Amino acid sequence: MIPRTKKRVEVCFSPNLYNLHKDDFEIVVVIDVLRATSAICTAMHHGVKSIIPIASLEEAFSYKKKGFIVAAEREGEIVEGFKFGNSPYAYMDPAFKGKTIVMTTTNGTKTINVAKKDSKTIVVGSFLNMDVLSNWLIKQDKNTLLLCSGWKDKFNLEDTLCAGAIAEMMLDSLKFESHEDSSIAAKYLFISAKSNYLGYLKSSSHRRRLKKLNLNKDIIYCLTPNQTPVIPILKNDTIVNLQLNKKKVSKPVLKAKSKK
Amino acid sequence: MIPRTKKRVEVCFSPNLYNLHKDDFEIVVVIDVLRATSAICTAMHHGVKSIIPIASLEEAFSYKKKGFIVAAEREGEIVEGFKFGNSPYAYMDPAFKGKTIVMTTTNGTKTINVAKKDSKTIVVGSFLNMDVLSNWLIKQDKNTLLLCSGWKDKFNLEDTLCAGAIAEMMLDSLKFESHEDSSIAAKYLFISAKSNYLGYLKSSSHRRRLKKLNLNKDIIYCLTPNQTPVIPILKNDTIVNLQLNKKKVSKPVLKAKSKK
Repeated sequence: MIPRTKKRVEVCFSPNLYNLHKDDFEIVVVIDVLRATSAICTAMHHGVKSIIPIASLEEAFSYKKKGFIVAAEREGEIVEGFKFGNSPYAYMDPAFKGKTIVMTTTNGTKTINVAKKDSKTIVVGSFLNMDVLSNWLIKQDKNTLLLCSGWKDKFNLEDTLCAGAIAEMMLDSLKFESHEDSSIAAKYLFISAKSNYLGYLKSSSHRRRLKKLNLNKDIIYCLTPNQTPVIPILKNDTIVNLQLNKKKVSKPVLKAKSKK
Repeated sequence: MIPRTKKRVEVCFSPNLYNLHKDDFEIVVVIDVLRATSAICTAMHHGVKSIIPIASLEEAFSYKKKGFIVAAEREGEIVEGFKFGNSPYAYMDPAFKGKTIVMTTTNGTKTINVAKKDSKTIVVGSFLNMDVLSNWLIKQDKNTLLLCSGWKDKFNLEDTLCAGAIAEMMLDSLKFESHEDSSIAAKYLFISAKSNYLGYLKSSSHRRRLKKLNLNKDIIYCLTPNQTPVIPILKNDTIVNLQLNKKKVSKPVLKAKSKK
C-alpha cells in the first residue's frame, strides 16, 4: 500500500507570528478562549444570525451610529458607550435571536481580521465547540492552522491549551501530522492540563485579570468543553453558523436534545 | 516586616515578540541552545578572547576580507566560503585561544543583534552554563528577560526548556516572580522534560533538522547542563567572558579542576 501523505495541523501562538506560518494552510481556526470566540460560539448556539467581527473602536462607533447592535470590549471590560462586551452570558438573551451583532474585542476579533486578509477558510474555535469542530476539521482533510489570539500579541496559556486539545484530536485521527515545535509544546501542555484546566490556569495572566473583574463565572463556562455543536465560519466578512447553513435548520440544535 | 517587591523573570519565545516585552527588563539573556549560544559558551570556556556577533552574511564576508577569523552558519550548515559554523566542537581547538572570532548564525547572533539595540545588559545562556548563570542573575537582582532565539522567529522547544530551567532556579530563590503566561508555560515544559531532555526533544523540529545533518553528537553535548562556569556578556558589541574579567584570571577555569 502506498503511504498516504498526511495533512498538517499546526499551532501558532500569536497573531504576531501568523505571517511566519500562514502560507502553508487552507483552514485557519481562530481561538480566543477568554472570551471572544467562546462568546461567538454561545451567540450562534442561542440563535444569533450573524456576527460582524471588527478590529477598531472607530468602526464600532460608526456601526453604532448606523443602528447596529454593537459589542465592544477592551482589557476585559465593556467599552464606555456600549452595552455589551464579550461575556458569553450576554449572548444567551433570546432578544438577540435572528439578529446581527457587530463585535470588537481586545484580541479575538482583531485576530480574525488579521487572518481574513488571506483567502483562507476561517472558522471559530473554543472549548465550547471543541469536539464538533475537530471532527469537522478532520473531515475537511486540509492543512489546518490553529491560531491563538493570545493577549495583545503575547502568548497565552488558555488559547494554547484549546489549540493543543484540537490538535490532539486531529492527530489521533491519524490523518494529520505536526512539524512545528509550537504544536508539540501545545500538545504537551494540553496533556498535562486536561484533567483540571481551571487549576492549571490558576496563575495564568488572563485568569488573574478576569478574576479581578469578578468574571470567574465566565472563566468556568469558557473552560467547559463541548457545550454546543455550532461551527462559526467567516463568509464575506461575517460570521455565520456553518452547521445551521448546511442543515437548513431554523434554530440551533441543543446537543443534549438532539435526536439525530 | 514590609514585604519586599520581587523582581521579574520572564520568558520571551521569539525575537519577533521581543518588542512586546523589552521595556520591562534591565538584563536580557539570549538563548540559542542548538547551537549558537552553546558554541559561544564553549569558545569562552576554551580560551577564546572575544566573539563579535553579527547578523548578516554581508558583514561576515566583509570581516573575512579584513583578515578576521569568521564563523558563518545558515540552516545548520557552514556557509560556503567559511571554515567554521556553530558546532561547539570547533571552538575547543587550542588554536583559537586568545583570539577574536566573528560569528553569524541563523538565529542566535541575529537575536543578540535584535536585543542590543536597547541599552540593556546582554548575557549569553545555554544548558552548558545554566547554574552559574542563574546564580549570577539572582545576585544581580534585576528584572530579567530570558529571550529564546527560536527558529527563524518561530517558537522552538529546546530554547524554551533552557529558559524554563533558568526561570525555575531564579523563582526558587524567592527573589523573583513571573507574570507572563509564556514564563508559566516554559516552566511547565521544563518540569516535564527535565528527566530526559533528549527523549523529550526527539520530535522537535530542530533536533530532526540537525540529526539529518549527522549532528547528534552536537545535540547531546548542547543538552548536557553545567559544563562550564563562563558567563559571556556583550560589551561594546563584543562578547567577552564576564567571570574572567572580574577575576582577572588569564585562562578559563575548568569546573572539574577548579580548586577555589
